[in-house]
Amino acid sequence: MQLRLGSIVEALGGELHGDPRREVDGLAPLESATPSQLSFLGNARLLSLLPSSKAGCVIVAPAQFEAARARGDCIVAPHPYLYFARVTQLWKRLSSPPAGPAIHPSAVVDPEAVVHPTARIGALCVVERGVHIGPGTVLKARVTVAEGCVIGDRCTLHPGAVIGADGFGFAPNAGVWEKIEQLGGVRIGNDVDIGANTCIDRGALADTVIEDGVKLDNLIQVGHNVRIGRNTAIAGCAGIAGSANIGAHCTIGGAAMILGHLTLADGVNISAGSFVSRSILKPGHYSGIFPIDDNASWEKNAATLKQLHKLRDRVKALEKKT
Amino acid sequence: MQLRLGSIVEALGGELHGDPRREVDGLAPLESATPSQLSFLGNARLLSLLPSSKAGCVIVAPAQFEAARARGDCIVAPHPYLYFARVTQLWKRLSSPPAGPAIHPSAVVDPEAVVHPTARIGALCVVERGVHIGPGTVLKARVTVAEGCVIGDRCTLHPGAVIGADGFGFAPNAGVWEKIEQLGGVRIGNDVDIGANTCIDRGALADTVIEDGVKLDNLIQVGHNVRIGRNTAIAGCAGIAGSANIGAHCTIGGAAMILGHLTLADGVNISAGSFVSRSILKPGHYSGIFPIDDNASWEKNAATLKQLHKLRDRVKALEKKT
Amino acid sequence: MQLRLGSIVEALGGELHGDPRREVDGLAPLESATPSQLSFLGNARLLSLLPSSKAGCVIVAPAQFEAARARGDCIVAPHPYLYFARVTQLWKRLSSPPAGPAIHPSAVVDPEAVVHPTARIGALCVVERGVHIGPGTVLKARVTVAEGCVIGDRCTLHPGAVIGADGFGFAPNAGVWEKIEQLGGVRIGNDVDIGANTCIDRGALADTVIEDGVKLDNLIQVGHNVRIGRNTAIAGCAGIAGSANIGAHCTIGGAAMILGHLTLADGVNISAGSFVSRSILKPGHYSGIFPIDDNASWEKNAATLKQLHKLRDRVKALEKKT
Repeated sequence: MQLRLGSIVEALGGELHGDPRREVDGLAPLESATPSQLSFLGNARLLSLLPSSKAGCVIVAPAQFEAARARGDCIVAPHPYLYFARVTQLWKRLSSPPAGPAIHPSAVVDPEAVVHPTARIGALCVVERGVHIGPGTVLKARVTVAEGCVIGDRCTLHPGAVIGADGFGFAPNAGVWEKIEQLGGVRIGNDVDIGANTCIDRGALADTVIEDGVKLDNLIQVGHNVRIGRNTAIAGCAGIAGSANIGAHCTIGGAAMILGHLTLADGVNISAGSFVSRSILKPGHYSGIFPIDDNASWEKNAATLKQLHKLRDRVKALEKKT
Repeated sequence: MQLRLGSIVEALGGELHGDPRREVDGLAPLESATPSQLSFLGNARLLSLLPSSKAGCVIVAPAQFEAARARGDCIVAPHPYLYFARVTQLWKRLSSPPAGPAIHPSAVVDPEAVVHPTARIGALCVVERGVHIGPGTVLKARVTVAEGCVIGDRCTLHPGAVIGADGFGFAPNAGVWEKIEQLGGVRIGNDVDIGANTCIDRGALADTVIEDGVKLDNLIQVGHNVRIGRNTAIAGCAGIAGSANIGAHCTIGGAAMILGHLTLADGVNISAGSFVSRSILKPGHYSGIFPIDDNASWEKNAATLKQLHKLRDRVKALEKKT
Repeated sequence: MQLRLGSIVEALGGELHGDPRREVDGLAPLESATPSQLSFLGNARLLSLLPSSKAGCVIVAPAQFEAARARGDCIVAPHPYLYFARVTQLWKRLSSPPAGPAIHPSAVVDPEAVVHPTARIGALCVVERGVHIGPGTVLKARVTVAEGCVIGDRCTLHPGAVIGADGFGFAPNAGVWEKIEQLGGVRIGNDVDIGANTCIDRGALADTVIEDGVKLDNLIQVGHNVRIGRNTAIAGCAGIAGSANIGAHCTIGGAAMILGHLTLADGVNISAGSFVSRSILKPGHYSGIFPIDDNASWEKNAATLKQLHKLRDRVKALEKKT
């Protein structure tokens, strides 16, 4: 596919400095872009990469205009990274083939499910009884939405996602586990993205709730009765245990784990790989990761760590003496 | 659905104090239950929530009878949480629609698989050659049970579960990996639950074994030749590496990881997020998690941790001096 | 199935000491092998298990020939573990039923996908438009290969694997996330194995690349624009964040996590459960795991760890005083 620079600014705004008839056939980072590609300077700290970029055109912020124009063609826009996002959307829209049927014939959709006519259900999906799927929502291939779950508008569910499996609930009874049937559902708001093979369990009594604009990456586990506030983004392999209450506008890094029944305030950022074992009621950036080291050093430090409390006592004793 | 209190005690036992004709239309926790809902006091520590609960009826232990009766209707049962579990089962049973065909027409079941007539195979499942599935077992949608695996009675397998993929076995050969074909199978006992997108690999030579009553949450990896003892429960995102031997009546928290070839005794409890790098031969509660902190504090502590062994040496030197 | 020792050495080489007409009906480790089974001594450190093994025949290295022959029949080969791997392959080949159709009738294969006639597509797979699948590659049941992805020769993809879901890319826009369409693909080399429910995301602009001979276990997340060098092996539950560049001949343990945009040199070994937060430019063995302990000890040490930096300052102060 080829796109004229003039068509891009016509569709997305921004100020083109250069030849509107110049065509680009792809998008690429500054370092690797060729003269037939469009690039962007999303972060002023990468300014040093600009002069030598071979890109046919670069999207820049107004503050970088002079540097960019000295190099060659550019599009000036207040938020170059956002502008770039919109170019990807334009590109995708123009390069996609005409859509097939709204519900792929291989999908198994219960007659008592309600799928909006503008929603799309991919190959080999399962949509069970009582499900509602809103306008513009897309289920890619092999997604399961179990009984009674509700999915809002303009959501995207990637392959293998499972919405509404039973929450993990059992009552102990003389050494064996007795099932607590999970009678709640899952309610997913609008503009939610759910990654491949991610699981969101149905609630025990009330519903599990994913609010508008939440973005979940792949292979994430969301337990029963969790609530994830609007526009929170969670990276791959994270786990959110049952009844956790995650605020809005949070970011949770990959493989982070949130214990059950905790609360995270709005605007909390959890580093990848961290284990959240207590509620966090103030916005901010939180971490808890064992630093990686060469194995021999790690072994020595880990062994000392197992004696750390005693080491503290020894320091205390020394302090008393001196 | 509505259920009369009288019908509940008729079905499940317990002592009703109140109007047997009162109807409830749902179950809810003490704090949020409405007058048309049934609730329960599963834990005496939550007694303070009881007086102000608006629940139409509350399930309580004999010791809480007086406090409960002062509030309103109650059902007295020796184990309220277990009683509650059974109410969820009753509720589910009564509210479920009549079952469809035992094997969903979209499932792919090999003619040489043996599926008990009372088992149920969901939409788009794959059941391969030589599989045995016992009475009352339910495969929800999109489950795979690969060649030769055996699943007992009354098990539930949630969507996307994969039973019997190849174990991860390769022999190094001059820098490349040569496949060790996995010739064992997977044997799953009775009353086992397996969560969504959880994987249990087939054994290399002998079988991978999941004993009776084991409960596995979502997105768990169970390597080849693992044995999980009866009634052990494992929470989501956990990983059990190959040939680990997990005892009976253990609990393993979410995202915990058990190294290969280790043994865990019966009755071991592993905290969520812990990494088990050695066998644990005594029952008890074990943990190993980096405490979360604000990012700045974590950075300082993590940097010091990388010098911990040296710090110990410095304390030793001080002790010699004083 | 039964196999004569003579047929085994005829197919695979090695020196048989014993009766070529002796038949074995299975493979087993030294400790559990019966007189009708073939075993192997893969590691000289297990030599003590040899004399009492009841195996009908044992594969050994030349150095162990005398000890082995004293016990009974043996096959001598330079690399017994590799020889054993090849016996499993022979066993599998001979015991497998004749293959069904190359593309299972329940699979959904786009007419614009190119599947080599010797490739095999399992039940309920989805192979989208523009996909190329090379000779001898096997997709087990319920695998998704999304639009435009390329898979080389002799690969195996296990059930539930998802190749080419969208990478996790969003641009912030006044508190909401705006989608960055993922315009790249996934390119998988030859002889690659991909485990059950593992996900490999398509690139944002360029492709995600998995080189020849890479082995990925189950439930692994590979983010967009990652490159994994040839013959690297990664165990289950690991996560490789976007744009990480993993060298060749690395091993990454289970549940390890590699942050985005990092580089790992060739020949790096990461212990299971470690979190890689910085590039590692020298081959070697690296670890970072909180040691597990009984819960009470862990609690005391973890509490002290949160004061570790202050403890260091106290030691510094003591050093000044003395």
